[in-house]
Amino acid sequence: MFQAKINAGLLQSSIDAVGVFVDECKVRVDSEGLSVKAVDPANVGMVELDVPADSFDSFEADDELLGLNLTKFDDIIGMAKAGDVVALELDPETGKLKIQIDGLRYTLSLIDPESIHQEPNVPDLDLPGEVVLAGAEINRGIKASGMVSDHMAFGVEDKSFYMSAEGDQDDVRVDLTEDEVISLTAEEDARSLFSLDYLESMSKAIPSDAQVTLYVGSDFPVRMEFELQGGDADVSYLLAPRIENE
Amino acid sequence: MFQAKINAGLLQSSIDAVGVFVDECKVRVDSEGLSVKAVDPANVGMVELDVPADSFDSFEADDELLGLNLTKFDDIIGMAKAGDVVALELDPETGKLKIQIDGLRYTLSLIDPESIHQEPNVPDLDLPGEVVLAGAEINRGIKASGMVSDHMAFGVEDKSFYMSAEGDQDDVRVDLTEDEVISLTAEEDARSLFSLDYLESMSKAIPSDAQVTLYVGSDFPVRMEFELQGGDADVSYLLAPRIENE
Amino acid sequence: MFQAKINAGLLQSSIDAVGVFVDECKVRVDSEGLSVKAVDPANVGMVELDVPADSFDSFEADDELLGLNLTKFDDIIGMAKAGDVVALELDPETGKLKIQIDGLRYTLSLIDPESIHQEPNVPDLDLPGEVVLAGAEINRGIKASGMVSDHMAFGVEDKSFYMSAEGDQDDVRVDLTEDEVISLTAEEDARSLFSLDYLESMSKAIPSDAQVTLYVGSDFPVRMEFELQGGDADVSYLLAPRIENE
Repeated sequence: MFQAKINAGLLQSSIDAVGVFVDECKVRVDSEGLSVKAVDPANVGMVELDVPADSFDSFEADDELLGLNLTKFDDIIGMAKAGDVVALELDPETGKLKIQIDGLRYTLSLIDPESIHQEPNVPDLDLPGEVVLAGAEINRGIKASGMVSDHMAFGVEDKSFYMSAEGDQDDVRVDLTEDEVISLTAEEDARSLFSLDYLESMSKAIPSDAQVTLYVGSDFPVRMEFELQGGDADVSYLLAPRIENE
Repeated sequence: MFQAKINAGLLQSSIDAVGVFVDECKVRVDSEGLSVKAVDPANVGMVELDVPADSFDSFEADDELLGLNLTKFDDIIGMAKAGDVVALELDPETGKLKIQIDGLRYTLSLIDPESIHQEPNVPDLDLPGEVVLAGAEINRGIKASGMVSDHMAFGVEDKSFYMSAEGDQDDVRVDLTEDEVISLTAEEDARSLFSLDYLESMSKAIPSDAQVTLYVGSDFPVRMEFELQGGDADVSYLLAPRIENE
Repeated sequence: MFQAKINAGLLQSSIDAVGVFVDECKVRVDSEGLSVKAVDPANVGMVELDVPADSFDSFEADDELLGLNLTKFDDIIGMAKAGDVVALELDPETGKLKIQIDGLRYTLSLIDPESIHQEPNVPDLDLPGEVVLAGAEINRGIKASGMVSDHMAFGVEDKSFYMSAEGDQDDVRVDLTEDEVISLTAEEDARSLFSLDYLESMSKAIPSDAQVTLYVGSDFPVRMEFELQGGDADVSYLLAPRIENE
């Protein structure tokens, strides 16, 4: 069984964070809460979402695995007004998800979880650079980089964090010293290059006012962790690097 | 002769209400005011508009029948700012409509009324269910129904009004009890099915804050009546049902 | 050398004013400030832009001629927030333009000025009608005219300024008497016809709240002069007439 009530805004930003990489996903619910692990079809980007039970207005669940069409689910939740509560209930007879928003009842067919791409094993990487900064800063670096190239670097160097992109003609660079970010820990210099296609999608899901913890290595994946709605949900992205031609 | 001044917002919402079904229409003016009856080319939706003479800032008219291109007229009135007054005058010499908005003078050629689709005879139906509710509620039911199907039902059942749509996979339903609407009178249960193409167009012209009186029968047309600008114009829609396959 | 700081809003509206006619242009800087003269590829519209040195937050320049891709430059300056200061610096070694906006550093390749369309010799015309009016009035006349035709007239007649357009079916006319404009001087009646394609582009760059001085003759170009940001930059447009068929 699964039966829960949740703030519409929190639910929508959670869906959007996963929707960056996949159109459909397996949603796990159990007594701890709701969680998703997904990887994009090209195996380049992974996302982990955790919405703990106590972030819900009410939450009751046995272990269930739901196959969810995120695009459709996002449209439905988009019917809610700010502050609305969304009631979710798995109908044990039909296997469908009943969604109620202020008098509107939507019955959503679920997807057979077996037909959905397997959940990834998210590797536990030891990345030497760790920087905490505002989502707005990262989003700005991504946007500017997209003006000159289709890939960009994240790096740490001399107690600074940088984002940079080198185009055929023009270059972009943002340097943020230790004092200009919330915190910076760098065991050694590091730099990795990433596809802007992916970063630009991720950027849409990173709240400007969130504190993002970004972990970077040398030609290693980048990890970005942030909270939604001031801590009610945790999102973690892992993006594989592009190997740089020297 | 025809010479009148009217609030731009009232004029525009009146045009928009008719434009749901037709691009051009016959506009009747006489000493009582301005009125339109029109039916869409497929004979599925009808609209009646009445703007009484005393809703105008000034109004003088002999019996005249004007053939109006609504798309073009709507663009012209769109030049007005909120609160502007639009002056309309039929030029007896040229047969054109002179439109003045704050110093801007637009001379609009009219269409030969003979070339426009005949005005419909709007049938006087006795529909057993009558519900009064906010335009916002109807518009929400239409929007949600459009997510699962291309047609939806309006119905009354057990002292409740409902809107519902059944798609191949998903369903939507909104139930509003007697206490959740402004008023509900149902001599008997009733239910009819309608094309969402038409309802979605009508929805754009139904003000969220208007009280809409909706009359429904069993496999009969639905009638929706509402006022624009707090009573300065009356709109009535009649939409033919789709016959439901049992 | 060239090194300057300028308010982002002023810089962007200056670029936009030139971008009406060309995608790339020669930018002259010297001790007096920054200036541009450009003509569109069809030789129909010319623009002169002057941003005096003291409109910059700081300004140092020897005589330099920079070849600028306006579309790209506009995108970069679009990264600034309201009130941001943009720092510009010509790198003497690379010949590239270094642009800094709140920590973001963009290195922009310049275009060889020789490859850009020659700067026009702007003719010094003696036009008999001179009217000063709000940008909003001109923009409104252009918008309304575009609804009926692809060309429109500016004229002075009987101590009035008018804008008019005659379509196949409909006409538009705005008359503004001496009392309805800021000032009007007309040595003789005058009227010239212009392409709305050009005027609609220019309209986007004319601030609604700017005082525009418009000079009109008989089958002569129209000149429009206005200031950006309350005097920090001067823009002058000259648009060639279409010859009217009598």
